[in-house]
Amino acid sequence: MPKVNISELALRDAHQSLLATRMRLADMLPICPKLDAIGYWSLECWGGATFDACLRFLKEDPWERLRLLREALPNTRLQMLLRGQNLLGYRHYSDDVVRAFVARAAANGMDVFRIFDALNDLRNLVTAIEATKEADKHAQGTICYTLSPVHDAGGYVKMGRELAAMGCDSIAVKDMAGLLTPYAASELVKALKDAVDLPLHLHSHATAGLAEMCHLKAIEAGCEHIDTAISSMAGGTSHSPTESMVAALRETPYDTGLDLEKIQEIGIYFYQIRKRYHQFESEFTGVDTRVQVNQVPGGMISNLAHQLKEQNALDRMEEVLAEIPRVRADLGYPPLVTPTSQIVGTQAVLNVLTGKRYQTITNEVKRYLQGGYGRAPAPVDDKLQRQAIGNEELIECRPADLLHAEMERLAADIGKLATSDEDVLTYAMFPEIGHSFLEHRAAGTLEPEPLEPPSSTVDDNRTAPTEFN
Amino acid sequence: MPKVNISELALRDAHQSLLATRMRLADMLPICPKLDAIGYWSLECWGGATFDACLRFLKEDPWERLRLLREALPNTRLQMLLRGQNLLGYRHYSDDVVRAFVARAAANGMDVFRIFDALNDLRNLVTAIEATKEADKHAQGTICYTLSPVHDAGGYVKMGRELAAMGCDSIAVKDMAGLLTPYAASELVKALKDAVDLPLHLHSHATAGLAEMCHLKAIEAGCEHIDTAISSMAGGTSHSPTESMVAALRETPYDTGLDLEKIQEIGIYFYQIRKRYHQFESEFTGVDTRVQVNQVPGGMISNLAHQLKEQNALDRMEEVLAEIPRVRADLGYPPLVTPTSQIVGTQAVLNVLTGKRYQTITNEVKRYLQGGYGRAPAPVDDKLQRQAIGNEELIECRPADLLHAEMERLAADIGKLATSDEDVLTYAMFPEIGHSFLEHRAAGTLEPEPLEPPSSTVDDNRTAPTEFN
Ligand SMILES: [Co+2]
Ligand SMILES: [Co+2]
Repeated sequence: MPKVNISELALRDAHQSLLATRMRLADMLPICPKLDAIGYWSLECWGGATFDACLRFLKEDPWERLRLLREALPNTRLQMLLRGQNLLGYRHYSDDVVRAFVARAAANGMDVFRIFDALNDLRNLVTAIEATKEADKHAQGTICYTLSPVHDAGGYVKMGRELAAMGCDSIAVKDMAGLLTPYAASELVKALKDAVDLPLHLHSHATAGLAEMCHLKAIEAGCEHIDTAISSMAGGTSHSPTESMVAALRETPYDTGLDLEKIQEIGIYFYQIRKRYHQFESEFTGVDTRVQVNQVPGGMISNLAHQLKEQNALDRMEEVLAEIPRVRADLGYPPLVTPTSQIVGTQAVLNVLTGKRYQTITNEVKRYLQGGYGRAPAPVDDKLQRQAIGNEELIECRPADLLHAEMERLAADIGKLATSDEDVLTYAMFPEIGHSFLEHRAAGTLEPEPLEPPSSTVDDNRTAPTEFN
Repeated sequence: MPKVNISELALRDAHQSLLATRMRLADMLPICPKLDAIGYWSLECWGGATFDACLRFLKEDPWERLRLLREALPNTRLQMLLRGQNLLGYRHYSDDVVRAFVARAAANGMDVFRIFDALNDLRNLVTAIEATKEADKHAQGTICYTLSPVHDAGGYVKMGRELAAMGCDSIAVKDMAGLLTPYAASELVKALKDAVDLPLHLHSHATAGLAEMCHLKAIEAGCEHIDTAISSMAGGTSHSPTESMVAALRETPYDTGLDLEKIQEIGIYFYQIRKRYHQFESEFTGVDTRVQVNQVPGGMISNLAHQLKEQNALDRMEEVLAEIPRVRADLGYPPLVTPTSQIVGTQAVLNVLTGKRYQTITNEVKRYLQGGYGRAPAPVDDKLQRQAIGNEELIECRPADLLHAEMERLAADIGKLATSDEDVLTYAMFPEIGHSFLEHRAAGTLEPEPLEPPSSTVDDNRTAPTEFN
């Protein structure tokens, strides 16, 4: 019985973090027999941005991807990332859509549902957790880790207790920005293990180069599950290398029991596969510790750079980086994760470029201040809230409580283009690109975006003896 | 007073590991004021392969590089890597050359001499350590870490005690291959700290993705000094990112006391500088855990691939990898580091390609078996030794004891081309390329190898929202 269990992220988070979520099913299936033989606790392979990328760029049916992965991986748990009441889309859905989505994902082969909410508002997790348990699947309640004056280990422990009470089978600590440090990880894990009698999963991005150390200290503190990515898809904005963690723990009380040599073969496979996606490599996926100073995730900085460049205002970056924590404070310190990272970032850019804070307020910030995303971790700025929503009513309940059942309407809307509940859900997640996908599918005109040919192989320039010292 | 001290490797080991040692002085000097203000315990900036690369490719006088770095870094210890009696060349030198070299290095500004021998034969360190102490500089005795049936913590502790008795000011554990694992590092450090009352430095390459964890566990076990490389020159065959280690230790009992934001500015500088050397980037510098299975350093595997490719025998790689441990056993388990990595690797290739083991024996293996490099960690294969050296006498003494003083002869040989003792030493280290360098210098025709223009900047292909989760 291994003491530490590994969830491998190669098929979802790793390529989402490094290759703009572009890995195709055709490049996954050939390695599935080897992946399935390793003995990973789970393979994360769906959710996050994969659904979007499948429809938008790859012209793959995400449900078909799930079914084929299920077939190719009969012995390993499949895991997905689910944004609570947002599912895989960018708005809150009515409960009947959430239930249908979870039920269909389960029926198509999903085993483990990692469910989170960007605000850590647990009301936004209730329906998805219930639906997962109804489908007799593994519900993993997720704590989004962040730093702020209102976040501390005590608050996370309270969340952990509530997730346990909600019927979760395990708890995940999700450090999407690489904010965790090793000794903070150790303390948090100890506190959670003391309070909650559930298996604990740590998901810490390697953005700041701290993930391996965080995992090691978490394991020493009692964490039994870590998330890693095969080495050729690891590091930087991705995750700790699987092989390195397996090697680090071998012949210790924390031994994973996995065969390092067999995992290395998988690493070599993805090393070659990654080359096919060279056009999606980015300069901004390397180790970047700035998040440890300003709490702005590295990936968010590159998005901001993009936004500023389009406005010919790249020189305002420092001001924007200084404005982000202020906007975040005004909004009651939301963790910065999809969609709050975009909400905060865009407003901060506006605040800087217009020269007057909140002269323009985005619709998303307005909805946020109104309570449309749920409850902020701390009270939002009162004056700003009044300015933004005027006389409109505050939403104090769970936002989805205001939504009527919508599966029937969605099915009617999409009509014959949908040949299954799954298709209706595809349309529900992405009304425009989902519709277009189903249309092209019906017409037989689906065409994935082209891949650039490989760049010429670099010759080895090292004519002097290579030294090791 | 910081609890953990950092030696920054950006100016030597990092570009040696990632960019074939090609970084030029002109790209170092502009950042020196910032480097000098950080408060690093030392800046490694000379030795290893830098001397060779300066003369061979960059047409820089390595002594001039040292003097200019000294001037630009008045507040920080300068550190070099010295191969014991080999100095920076590829043979054993007579003691008068060793003494002259260390004295001139000290006079030109070197503060810390990290001195190692590929076989861990301490007799090969004696003269360099003595010379360092005579120059009133810091002598750091080095333990080359390896794994074998004859290497264990007890043996390393014995070495540590002997290095202390020889007058060393500190001890370095040098894990050039990335073989160390976190808990092995912890045990080794504890054993050494228990036995030897000297500061301990850990130098662990990140080849296998374990270096950060090794450093962390070493620190917890009492190691006060770690070697790191600025993040934009870190990872893989290089080292743990400086910023990440500083961030990991902040606000803990191990705090380095260094300013993370200031170090980040240095990281951004080297991020830009690295692009100028893109032609020297290699496919083989990423995380590679194979060393944890077969003990063959990743960088050595890429050298072997090169050798085999030239012989149209890349398909024999598996056999060569299996042969290496056998050759190493025959040779009494030398650590694999310059020059033993080449000696073992080349013989293993021959053993496989000729179809008969030791049908051909290289001159280097012959010299090795004769004792020409010093004492092997364990007895070498008796039969092989007799086959290789025939009736020639075994060298049981320190190899340099058989060498006559040679500075005078060297000075006479190079004649007027040398205008200083430093020039004579340049010629001593590299008779051919040193001579050619001095000749071109005299003629005013030194010309560095050209750098390829930067490749076009990659456009950001990510049109879909980037998600953090
Ligand atoms: Co090194
Ligand atoms: Co993630």
